[in-house]
Amino acid sequence: MPSQNVYENAVFFENYSALPRSVHGLDGAPEWPRLQEFLPDLAGARVLDLGCGFGWFCRWAADHGAEGVHGVDIPTNMLEKARSMSQDKHSGITYARANLDALELPESDSASYDLVFSSLAFHYLEHWPPLVRLIHRVLRPGGRLVFSVEHPIFTCPPARALMVDPGTGRKYWKLEDYQKEGIRSKPWFVDGVEKQHRTMATYINLLLDTGFKLANFDEWCPTVDQLRAHPEWETEFIRPMFLLIGAVKTLRLDEGIA
Amino acid sequence: MPSQNVYENAVFFENYSALPRSVHGLDGAPEWPRLQEFLPDLAGARVLDLGCGFGWFCRWAADHGAEGVHGVDIPTNMLEKARSMSQDKHSGITYARANLDALELPESDSASYDLVFSSLAFHYLEHWPPLVRLIHRVLRPGGRLVFSVEHPIFTCPPARALMVDPGTGRKYWKLEDYQKEGIRSKPWFVDGVEKQHRTMATYINLLLDTGFKLANFDEWCPTVDQLRAHPEWETEFIRPMFLLIGAVKTLRLDEGIA
Repeated sequence: MPSQNVYENAVFFENYSALPRSVHGLDGAPEWPRLQEFLPDLAGARVLDLGCGFGWFCRWAADHGAEGVHGVDIPTNMLEKARSMSQDKHSGITYARANLDALELPESDSASYDLVFSSLAFHYLEHWPPLVRLIHRVLRPGGRLVFSVEHPIFTCPPARALMVDPGTGRKYWKLEDYQKEGIRSKPWFVDGVEKQHRTMATYINLLLDTGFKLANFDEWCPTVDQLRAHPEWETEFIRPMFLLIGAVKTLRLDEGIA
Repeated sequence: MPSQNVYENAVFFENYSALPRSVHGLDGAPEWPRLQEFLPDLAGARVLDLGCGFGWFCRWAADHGAEGVHGVDIPTNMLEKARSMSQDKHSGITYARANLDALELPESDSASYDLVFSSLAFHYLEHWPPLVRLIHRVLRPGGRLVFSVEHPIFTCPPARALMVDPGTGRKYWKLEDYQKEGIRSKPWFVDGVEKQHRTMATYINLLLDTGFKLANFDEWCPTVDQLRAHPEWETEFIRPMFLLIGAVKTLRLDEGIA
């Protein structure tokens, strides 16, 4: 799914596959309880998952009443694993290999989805604006886009940013180049993993300008219980890592935002 | 208007009064051209300015067709200057001294304003949520709240944050304590000027939960022309200083945000 498709790098894939969110699925993703609150009732819903990875959300949606679930991603190794983990009861799920940076969906999909979901995928994409317009097209009026991305504060530094002040011993986040959007290439299991930095204004304004109403917004932070179980997450109080957004397709694109 | 009311400190007031935005009014405020784009047509409009200062916006609104303009602030020295700068043509403007942290408005003001405006005032307030509910009450359905505050990235560090990396010579922003909301006490002309840090999620969610629809959003950044005239504003590319928001009162509070 990333333009770079680092997920098909063997070293990266082995390490990524060992992450709690890969092993334990949604329950291994600390931001999931909050993101879940943004979801509509899925009974009978048609769901599109952009960047479905191992298919954890696709199966969760099917288990919660969705009657048609379509998962899209580009790494073939992830799609293979997604298919292998689906059971008979998940017969309503289809997986397809596609590059989200140039995604096309048939005209028959227009105004057909109740929910478009995407977890931590959009910050890899070079061409996010056309994808948002496509999402708006395939959602029915009143349908929802619920997604997470790495927070703009997290993506903006061009280099390693979690530092320790030698004088006080306090950790801080070395923030740079916030207003300079574009590729950031940083190590994550392997060198040079490429992600796209966008400002908060870019995320929000593209949604508003495309004909979405902002419905839910969060900058994920551990709860007291989560912090007790994971004291190492105190870092999340220094700077947010995840941006979570829920948006509703307004009745007509030509209504604008007035 | 701040809880602390530093604006009545003589040293602070003398320095603040010499700022471009104090001497030249709206044209001296670099974020004004962008904030102005969020404003509705003011012909015949009733306008409330919370934290009116020297009254620059009140006079601008009256000059642009507003038929009733009410400016509220707490520093008496600012209100005196605001009154002294108003001319006969500004007869529709009234100024009142009030603490925005405990503002009350008469029942007769309910659903009466077309625009509530506030420039760089809310980040002084300890009790912003009740003020937002009051604003929602006094706006007519479809009326707008347009405001600027210091950006959460700008307010969050507990100490001086614009630093220079000794190795590279590059400037960076030492971001700390983003998720820890509350008072920050930092020097600005005088020691210990108190401002309130709130996260982006707090700003946005309070608006949505109160019954506003997000309509406009910006993290101010100089334009190419502005940067050419003020090369020292390159700092604004490192981290945003101003958050600008426009929000529309939805028809009924009980409609929620669905």
